[in-house]
Amino acid sequence: MSLQELFTRYILHIESEMRDCLSTPDPALAGYYGMLNYHLGWADEHFAPTPASRHAGKRIRPVLCLLACQSAQGDALQAIPAAAALELLHNFSLIHDDIEDNSPTRRGRPSVWALWGVPQAINSGDGMYSIAHMALGRLSRRGVPAERALAVRAIFDRACMALTHGQYLDLSFESRERVSVDEYITMVSGKTSALIGAATAIGATLAGSDAASHYETFGRELGLAFQIQDDVLGIWGDEALTGKSAESDIATRKKTLPVVYALERSEKLRALYAVPEVDVPAAIAALDAVSARTFADQAARQHHERALEALQASDAAGEAGLALYELAENLLGRAA
Amino acid sequence: MSLQELFTRYILHIESEMRDCLSTPDPALAGYYGMLNYHLGWADEHFAPTPASRHAGKRIRPVLCLLACQSAQGDALQAIPAAAALELLHNFSLIHDDIEDNSPTRRGRPSVWALWGVPQAINSGDGMYSIAHMALGRLSRRGVPAERALAVRAIFDRACMALTHGQYLDLSFESRERVSVDEYITMVSGKTSALIGAATAIGATLAGSDAASHYETFGRELGLAFQIQDDVLGIWGDEALTGKSAESDIATRKKTLPVVYALERSEKLRALYAVPEVDVPAAIAALDAVSARTFADQAARQHHERALEALQASDAAGEAGLALYELAENLLGRAA
Repeated sequence: MSLQELFTRYILHIESEMRDCLSTPDPALAGYYGMLNYHLGWADEHFAPTPASRHAGKRIRPVLCLLACQSAQGDALQAIPAAAALELLHNFSLIHDDIEDNSPTRRGRPSVWALWGVPQAINSGDGMYSIAHMALGRLSRRGVPAERALAVRAIFDRACMALTHGQYLDLSFESRERVSVDEYITMVSGKTSALIGAATAIGATLAGSDAASHYETFGRELGLAFQIQDDVLGIWGDEALTGKSAESDIATRKKTLPVVYALERSEKLRALYAVPEVDVPAAIAALDAVSARTFADQAARQHHERALEALQASDAAGEAGLALYELAENLLGRAA
Repeated sequence: MSLQELFTRYILHIESEMRDCLSTPDPALAGYYGMLNYHLGWADEHFAPTPASRHAGKRIRPVLCLLACQSAQGDALQAIPAAAALELLHNFSLIHDDIEDNSPTRRGRPSVWALWGVPQAINSGDGMYSIAHMALGRLSRRGVPAERALAVRAIFDRACMALTHGQYLDLSFESRERVSVDEYITMVSGKTSALIGAATAIGATLAGSDAASHYETFGRELGLAFQIQDDVLGIWGDEALTGKSAESDIATRKKTLPVVYALERSEKLRALYAVPEVDVPAAIAALDAVSARTFADQAARQHHERALEALQASDAAGEAGLALYELAENLLGRAA
């Protein structure tokens, strides 16, 4: 089976598990579960089911978890509840990020807080977080032994903690003039790559593999490469493909890797960032003048290589192993 | 040992465990853990340690957990991580509640959001929630078998979910003119009593008791009685003792049990609540005219009795068993 075929097959299981986790337990809570269903792309703002999954996100984390499990000779079906938990956790963080970043849209629609206000959105995020943990409780009925389920819980909990560490740093960077490249890497390690590393580590752990730490490194490094490439696309990407203009990341002074790198080297960029409204074309010229894009591209490639080395060390095998290599290539080669 | 002596002894263990869970893992995160320490009453807003625990809260949930464990013939020391987790979970909900309710103070000091803004406060709450889960991961090193640790996780996860259900209802009540007494009970069952029920159920589960469901009922009913009494004190309590005036609950149109009950019966109260600024003395007179206080007092007593019946059915024994009876009496007899 190709990556595409495995992806399609897995997605059906993941979606079905997530829907089971999100069934409304009480009619009085229809509005509550309606908001959660909306965020996941399953319902519109009146809670009517939406046919397409246009607003559903890519589900990369759960698929990585299942591929890791299968490539480590495990039974991917046993890992479905953990895969669902990872995707739900990711979505919890998106609901709260949108409030914290004051982002009125998500996947082409109004974000949860924009429709139902900040108090309900905070609580909906908390609910999504709780449902993610409930999903892990479903591992036992798939025959996962208690010791192994606890090991998964431990990896999951560490990733949750790391998410909030990364988000704290990201928020605190906003009010700082300068951030070092190392600080940036620490932030992304928490905010993005810890959860991807947890996805692959949990998959391998459920397979009973000895190579869970290699799988974790693979996921972490892939996450770093992915995020750095995202930073590059956010400035130099094709707006028609990425769906967002360079304006947003530069205008909001987002501390992405190219910017962090250039702020350390370009007096010009520092001056441009010191005034209330950033001159975007001039800022991009200043970034180019210190080869900030080249630096970021190289960093992304380096983390990508480390990811592949870890994948090799993990002895990932079979069609799922091949699919992991393919997925890693696709993620780094993307244009959006 | 008296309740007071047991309380004092337990609190030392609980605080020490919580502090272990909250030690800063990285100097870059000092500001993050500083906010969490502040909320827990251990630090001032400059992150300097505070000597007294004046701002620390009563720690009733973790003490109930340990008393339940010991009274069910378990080893209370084994339950310390779960007790810490329950208190941390409670504090997560307070950090988010303060944002959602727009409350600028908590335990006589500015709330987290009032000092560090909404985005950092949302994320700090998420961190406290994550640390609560991490705390449960420490049960294994106290010798709790994997199966039992998973059972505790399941009870804990259900309580987390119930908290967000209750909070959803509470927030949605704000925009509604009428709420039924049943709806009120459903809300409080999630928002307050689920976590107290989880505390006693987890204590009993860790003791390997067959009576965990009786312990859970005891906690739930106690929580309901406690909340209803809180509602009464919020209107008719002595401001000097409760620290808050009747103004706040009436002026903000909080849907407490006496108000919910009276709104169903008093045209006068509905008219008073229909204008922009509620006339507080007139509203209290309208509440008294339909005996709303008597109704709420009776409801509190009824839930208290059910709590005591469940405690009797649980066969709680020894000094910890006696302490549970004493605690239940103290909670209902309180004036603030």
